[in-house]
Amino acid sequence: MEKQKAFLPTAPYKGTRDFYPDEMRFRNWMFSVMRKTVQSFGYEEYDGPILESFELYLAKSGEEIVQRQLYDFTDKGDRHVAIRPEMTPTLARMVAGEVRNLAKPIRWFSIPNLWRYEQPGKGRLREHWQLNVDLFGVNSYRAEVEIILIANAILENFKAPKGSYQIKVSHRGILDSFLNQTLALAPEKAHAVSKLLDKKSKISKEAFEEEIKPLLSNPEKQLTLIYKYLDTNLQTIGDLEGIDPSSVEFIRNLFSDLASLGIKDQLEFDPSIIRGFDYYTGCIFEVFDTNPENRRSLYGGGRYDNLIGLFSNEQLSGIGFGLGDVTFKNFLEGHGLVPKDLNSKTAVLIPLMDDKIFPEVLKLAEELRKEGIGVETMLEPAKLGKQIQTAEKKGYRFLIFLGESELSENKVQLKDIVSGEQSSVSRSDLISILRKSLLG
Amino acid sequence: MEKQKAFLPTAPYKGTRDFYPDEMRFRNWMFSVMRKTVQSFGYEEYDGPILESFELYLAKSGEEIVQRQLYDFTDKGDRHVAIRPEMTPTLARMVAGEVRNLAKPIRWFSIPNLWRYEQPGKGRLREHWQLNVDLFGVNSYRAEVEIILIANAILENFKAPKGSYQIKVSHRGILDSFLNQTLALAPEKAHAVSKLLDKKSKISKEAFEEEIKPLLSNPEKQLTLIYKYLDTNLQTIGDLEGIDPSSVEFIRNLFSDLASLGIKDQLEFDPSIIRGFDYYTGCIFEVFDTNPENRRSLYGGGRYDNLIGLFSNEQLSGIGFGLGDVTFKNFLEGHGLVPKDLNSKTAVLIPLMDDKIFPEVLKLAEELRKEGIGVETMLEPAKLGKQIQTAEKKGYRFLIFLGESELSENKVQLKDIVSGEQSSVSRSDLISILRKSLLG
Repeated sequence: MEKQKAFLPTAPYKGTRDFYPDEMRFRNWMFSVMRKTVQSFGYEEYDGPILESFELYLAKSGEEIVQRQLYDFTDKGDRHVAIRPEMTPTLARMVAGEVRNLAKPIRWFSIPNLWRYEQPGKGRLREHWQLNVDLFGVNSYRAEVEIILIANAILENFKAPKGSYQIKVSHRGILDSFLNQTLALAPEKAHAVSKLLDKKSKISKEAFEEEIKPLLSNPEKQLTLIYKYLDTNLQTIGDLEGIDPSSVEFIRNLFSDLASLGIKDQLEFDPSIIRGFDYYTGCIFEVFDTNPENRRSLYGGGRYDNLIGLFSNEQLSGIGFGLGDVTFKNFLEGHGLVPKDLNSKTAVLIPLMDDKIFPEVLKLAEELRKEGIGVETMLEPAKLGKQIQTAEKKGYRFLIFLGESELSENKVQLKDIVSGEQSSVSRSDLISILRKSLLG
Repeated sequence: MEKQKAFLPTAPYKGTRDFYPDEMRFRNWMFSVMRKTVQSFGYEEYDGPILESFELYLAKSGEEIVQRQLYDFTDKGDRHVAIRPEMTPTLARMVAGEVRNLAKPIRWFSIPNLWRYEQPGKGRLREHWQLNVDLFGVNSYRAEVEIILIANAILENFKAPKGSYQIKVSHRGILDSFLNQTLALAPEKAHAVSKLLDKKSKISKEAFEEEIKPLLSNPEKQLTLIYKYLDTNLQTIGDLEGIDPSSVEFIRNLFSDLASLGIKDQLEFDPSIIRGFDYYTGCIFEVFDTNPENRRSLYGGGRYDNLIGLFSNEQLSGIGFGLGDVTFKNFLEGHGLVPKDLNSKTAVLIPLMDDKIFPEVLKLAEELRKEGIGVETMLEPAKLGKQIQTAEKKGYRFLIFLGESELSENKVQLKDIVSGEQSSVSRSDLISILRKSLLG
């Protein structure tokens, strides 16, 4: 008896995705809307290699990423390398390498593929794509104005309704002065308290208080201040003793400029916004989905004052944000923002009924392609019913039939699968009909 | 004395490239021409993860790749994984996973990033991007007709002159019958001889003969046959004793169909074409640059009769080719085919002269963006000369000046850096002037 052959599995590596044509069309559509939006603000696309030296992440990424999430290994030449878990270290390296030659402000974007070893779950995979938008060389709050304008324009260009998202903004200067001055915490305690504030919304009030109390010297008084802090708004935050006034003024200027551009209702000052990354030094913001079933951070970013300090003595202040495709896809689907015609064909199919006229089929296809109309031709004769079935399965609306008699009359039969109509049209009419129907 | 700070290097990992905005524009332009060409033939884009299981390559890739060129490692969950060195194994896995649901013929393409640990040199890096075009489910030579049409259309769409490239075609059935029948070699010797034929053009005649003689039982007679074989053309190949007549007929049909479509001079039967990959089973072809300074294979492909056999009992014949960006860029540059206006801006810059009118600058920018015109705005006031310098360095042609007096008249000053002209125009005229000048 023959041994049964063991087949290789067809599933992709755990926590990753295959992009079959339908998913790929979605991805291309989503990225093209993002790309057009940021390009309309004069941002230029860049990219770097997906492998970088391990030391780049050791120096720039958070401990959790390096210790537990990095895909790092030693190459055949004994170099310790890693697959990029985020784009910012590559960006910093590239900007630093050309910082003297680049005209400021530097406006750059990229849509890299990023990898982290995580336990896969809803909205969390081991790889995702992330739009990165960064602006370097502007020290004033005007940089924040522009970056939040872009963050908002992306959502508007996806036709997201006003109430579907909320942009929450804060400033590390406000948080730091609250921790260091208002609460008078020592640095290591301040850091631990900020981590707890960051996860407060994900745990119960009891758990929060239980975890925070050991960090406080005067828990009763300090907890009251913490709740008061979290309850402030842009009008009242300045009244809290010890809060850095220049950071408050910065945020007020930012909100005022954005309000004059109509960005008001979707904007909210929220002093609990922390952002995990340690390199933020100024304004920070996060965009939240308001859908109760997906109430999570969609994307966010902030200002980092000296991103290139590891590479150079030059000073360069930057601000940017990153937007991941997995959570954003959930947002678009949750709010019904995916166009229905994403999968409709902009091409036609020519069945092959008579093998002899195959070269004529290819000539017709060439003619149409030169006019910008995509054409798929069947390459082997088959029964009409089977070829129509193939066309339907592939999602074609138009079929073009070409036979000896059509050839002699310089005509074709055009069949519209949706309406079921079939008509005899001249080859010149064919082009204008298809251009109008398919290319709009 | 303070210790000197050690900076991290700004160079990318050895054998890889940073895509600064200029390089990225080139890459996007090159890929968009390729994408439009293959889409005009009804091909659909797909993608898969850049990490795959090691066993996929162990089973499907050549020994040299797996042993010496693979970026493979063990992940934190003890899975042996590898960064993809080629796309075909991923393609085979994906097609096999959905083979029963996909309408045939399957026409797919992808432009993946691929990695091989190689000694970097001219035209050879450790990573490149590669257009992969594949057609499954057509057994006749018509599949070859279409694939070579596409390979040729790509070059035509890059406006490559007729004489700048040559498409060489052969068939494994012709080679195999020559080795097994005409030369009557045993299988392992046949394999070694085919490897030598593949590298013949890169070594001297003496070295070739020295290496091949130990493989031959009757060197004098067999060498004569080998030279005769290499000297045949499509008319004479059938006269050589032992050559498989069905393979010859296949190639003759292919050439006849392509000739009727005007693809004749750039096409050549060349029985020395081998292609390195072991999975080709039928027609094979390679496109060569005819530039004497870059006379090398640009891209190539062929037919593989059962690509999905490792995953499934289903039978599916396929044909495809891969085109790498590094060698293709050399081709485009070598023949002067890169458009001169690739880096010209489709956006304008608005300097900021007066801080008070910043919100008005942003409103004007919004207006223009809604009309499809990209706008970069300066965010901090600076001297006029410095802002014009920035605009020139960034490659802008048009500057728009907005001040109190222009605002009160609903006008702007439009400056054309190329002509040096500056004129006062109304805001509605501005839009039509810019649309015409920038968006054509």
